[in-house]
Amino acid sequence: MGPGDASPDELALAETVGRLVAQRGAALVCGGLGGVMEAACRGARAEGGATIGILPGLDRSAANPHVQVAIATGLGEARNALVVRAADCLIAVGGAYGTLSEIALALKAGKRVVGLNTWEIEGIMPVDSAEAALSAALA
Amino acid sequence: MGPGDASPDELALAETVGRLVAQRGAALVCGGLGGVMEAACRGARAEGGATIGILPGLDRSAANPHVQVAIATGLGEARNALVVRAADCLIAVGGAYGTLSEIALALKAGKRVVGLNTWEIEGIMPVDSAEAALSAALA
Amino acid sequence: MGPGDASPDELALAETVGRLVAQRGAALVCGGLGGVMEAACRGARAEGGATIGILPGLDRSAANPHVQVAIATGLGEARNALVVRAADCLIAVGGAYGTLSEIALALKAGKRVVGLNTWEIEGIMPVDSAEAALSAALA
Amino acid sequence: MGPGDASPDELALAETVGRLVAQRGAALVCGGLGGVMEAACRGARAEGGATIGILPGLDRSAANPHVQVAIATGLGEARNALVVRAADCLIAVGGAYGTLSEIALALKAGKRVVGLNTWEIEGIMPVDSAEAALSAALA
Repeated sequence: MGPGDASPDELALAETVGRLVAQRGAALVCGGLGGVMEAACRGARAEGGATIGILPGLDRSAANPHVQVAIATGLGEARNALVVRAADCLIAVGGAYGTLSEIALALKAGKRVVGLNTWEIEGIMPVDSAEAALSAALA
Repeated sequence: MGPGDASPDELALAETVGRLVAQRGAALVCGGLGGVMEAACRGARAEGGATIGILPGLDRSAANPHVQVAIATGLGEARNALVVRAADCLIAVGGAYGTLSEIALALKAGKRVVGLNTWEIEGIMPVDSAEAALSAALA
Repeated sequence: MGPGDASPDELALAETVGRLVAQRGAALVCGGLGGVMEAACRGARAEGGATIGILPGLDRSAANPHVQVAIATGLGEARNALVVRAADCLIAVGGAYGTLSEIALALKAGKRVVGLNTWEIEGIMPVDSAEAALSAALA
Repeated sequence: MGPGDASPDELALAETVGRLVAQRGAALVCGGLGGVMEAACRGARAEGGATIGILPGLDRSAANPHVQVAIATGLGEARNALVVRAADCLIAVGGAYGTLSEIALALKAGKRVVGLNTWEIEGIMPVDSAEAALSAALA
């Protein structure tokens, strides 16, 4: 999880997270758009991993080019609940309000949320590297 | 907006907010369940106001007894997006993760969010009384 | 349930159904837009009944003027499932594809569906007057 | 699209449709459960195709074993709208009420719907073989 508008550091972090997700043999689910979502997908695809994008709009072509399976929901930001439901555990990188809504829904659902440079919310497991994020997420 | 499990102070605050919403001639929209949601509805109904509850489950009878119009969505916590969309502005009283998701979705949608004793999130307008909340919300 | 684009006969029928719904003390739930939806709401309001419109878009002002409680969902046609879930039983008047989706979802959910001049689908109770529709719906 | 409870002929037809979808290089999207959905996924996987299941519940393990990408939505039958939105064109095999709702939503959205042994609804393109279904769908 992470915003469409992100800093170079956040993008680099997200790409590394994506690489590690794929190396661990996990599929990467995200909101399918740009920024952190695109960086994570690029990283996962570079390692041959599976990438799934759950899009807010009705147009599948809005997915970033590293999404393998694009689901066009037409639900707008209500699709954030579906990103959370589709995932077993969640890693937030950076984050604006959309990411915060996903963090909150994930914690409400009792799912593990690992945070890299994101909102400080009780219940998130804060870590300081992509490697630590994966270790925490898959523990 | 507010949690089903709330302190006596939060419930009293929510009931006053509900009363003031009705006195201003506005309809009260909430998640339809207990706690802060029920207290706010009780307050609004005591002043003859309209109350709408957008429920997570399929069973309308899960609504608190002060909900006039209960919409059973069957969407689970994904219904939080609908509570936000149905409202013009939002007042959070207390708050657990469900409330946080509504705050985040409302801020993402560019809607005004007033906070009473709730999460400290940039973008929320914090106030310290029900009267101040209504003034801020309807400004 | 019924289409936004309807014949004069269907509109007259829908208005009578709305009147009867209100006379029986029931609330009328619909998709909130024009055509059959508007005619039914107009009838219900003429008898002092409650009308609820569950809208596809994000703009509450798209509701027809006889909707008392307008819920802007932003879900597009996915909101048809919510119209069905919000209702105890359903009366279809006329009908295009949106109506057909509601009929199908209602029958799938095991809800009673009464049909006036609508699709011929097994499971619908066909009737030939507004009075018969109400009798069948509320039996 | 097709029901969880289907005849042997419908299952065989669905499996052939799945095979042909994969042979044409298309991904197969369905509701992810048993019956027609499972048969179609089995056929697609036998040809090395991609299969996506958009599930009604919150539990990904409810997907049939031939679903590669299972999206647990927790939306119940409201997920039918998402199956339709995720697809470019739709082939119905057999069909109960859930399938009918998908047919109606697809036709409402202006998408091509090809029918094999399914509901007789104006707007569906009826065909009598899996090969004809693919030709019509991908025309």
